[in-house]
Amino acid sequence: MAKLYVVGIGPGGRENMTLKALKAIEESEVLVGYSFYIELLGDLVKAKEVIKTGMRGELERCKAAIESARAGKTTAIVSTGDSGLYGMAGPIHEMAEGVEIEVVPGISSAFSAAAELGAPIMHDFCTISLSDLLTPWETIESRLEMASKADFVIALYNPKSKTRTTQIERAFEIIREHKADSTPVGIVKNSGRFGKAVSTSTLGDTDFEDIDMMTVVIVGNKETYFKDGNIVTPRGYSI
Amino acid sequence: MAKLYVVGIGPGGRENMTLKALKAIEESEVLVGYSFYIELLGDLVKAKEVIKTGMRGELERCKAAIESARAGKTTAIVSTGDSGLYGMAGPIHEMAEGVEIEVVPGISSAFSAAAELGAPIMHDFCTISLSDLLTPWETIESRLEMASKADFVIALYNPKSKTRTTQIERAFEIIREHKADSTPVGIVKNSGRFGKAVSTSTLGDTDFEDIDMMTVVIVGNKETYFKDGNIVTPRGYSI
Repeated sequence: MAKLYVVGIGPGGRENMTLKALKAIEESEVLVGYSFYIELLGDLVKAKEVIKTGMRGELERCKAAIESARAGKTTAIVSTGDSGLYGMAGPIHEMAEGVEIEVVPGISSAFSAAAELGAPIMHDFCTISLSDLLTPWETIESRLEMASKADFVIALYNPKSKTRTTQIERAFEIIREHKADSTPVGIVKNSGRFGKAVSTSTLGDTDFEDIDMMTVVIVGNKETYFKDGNIVTPRGYSI
Repeated sequence: MAKLYVVGIGPGGRENMTLKALKAIEESEVLVGYSFYIELLGDLVKAKEVIKTGMRGELERCKAAIESARAGKTTAIVSTGDSGLYGMAGPIHEMAEGVEIEVVPGISSAFSAAAELGAPIMHDFCTISLSDLLTPWETIESRLEMASKADFVIALYNPKSKTRTTQIERAFEIIREHKADSTPVGIVKNSGRFGKAVSTSTLGDTDFEDIDMMTVVIVGNKETYFKDGNIVTPRGYSI
């Protein structure tokens, strides 16, 4: 039986891939992924059978990858970030029967963005996707509220898309009910890849125009502060 | 001015390191880290000046790394997992003045463990450290409560140490007030490195003896289920 790798390639640049992810792709005869992700792989794709689909074709991609592995070809389905967080590891495990699956973790965009911002995460944190395509908006609002109340550092994924433009403003409204307006906010577009843009603001003074579908937004906790242009959340050491 | 890299080496095995982490270590004249982490690097350490300290020497290590970079030597301070989550990126940014810092992200243990368990994270999730050495226990309890109420997938870091043995039981008590006893739980010891042990249970039936300081514990959300021995959290697609 051929193996099906579910590979998180990290934010996009080769240097943020793990050795294991590189090896899984090298070993695979067939690569499956959204066109943009396949392009990020550059010359790693050479001499391989490639199955690309458009942005909303997640299940189509999973089906193609499972069929390819079943047909006896070692296959890698790739996505950016970590394959186990908002990635393909879930649907592959849900759909596959009788296939050997190996999930290969990667650097999720919150971690890549955090490294570019200084050290904004550091302590207990959560990720919340603002996409209500697959999740009821009430669930998302409740998570925003509880996470803010408990003073987690919050990483907002999928803050906007072409058609979803208002969720980020509503999310900030909810967060501002529990966190101070002076709380540092990091905004990173195209983290870890070509077109990277890093900016900072505060919860009370964020320009939503700076945020798009390629952006991750990190909101600090009550101890987070600015230092030399970076955002730093203390771990709690007496320094 | 020499550069100070703050490197997350991932869970420990070489294959889970990123190319960037490897390169940062290769470029560095001086490596600083807790003895155990330095040992994980194996032959990467050869021909380098190495500054090791014991487990509780975090600030001592940071100080040594900053002094080394200030003295003109390219230096890497290494920790397992991601340097920006419960790692050295925070204290380095807090303590350093006049040093060029580059944070190199790595695979945090929740992601490595998740890959070994199947796809237990997949959706909105949070990390909570059960160590009350640097954080008031009331803050930790409040985070456990809010995260459970909002039905986040929860990754528990530092669930036990030699002296802290009761926190994990109390954490489960709090989580069980809001999540069903049938909720899948993944327990991974030494994720991604020698001595790896992966087991699963449910919230109502977890043996705390299986958990130690090298363990990460992942608790699912209300849709998480077992499939073929793996733990899977749906993303929400109609499959």
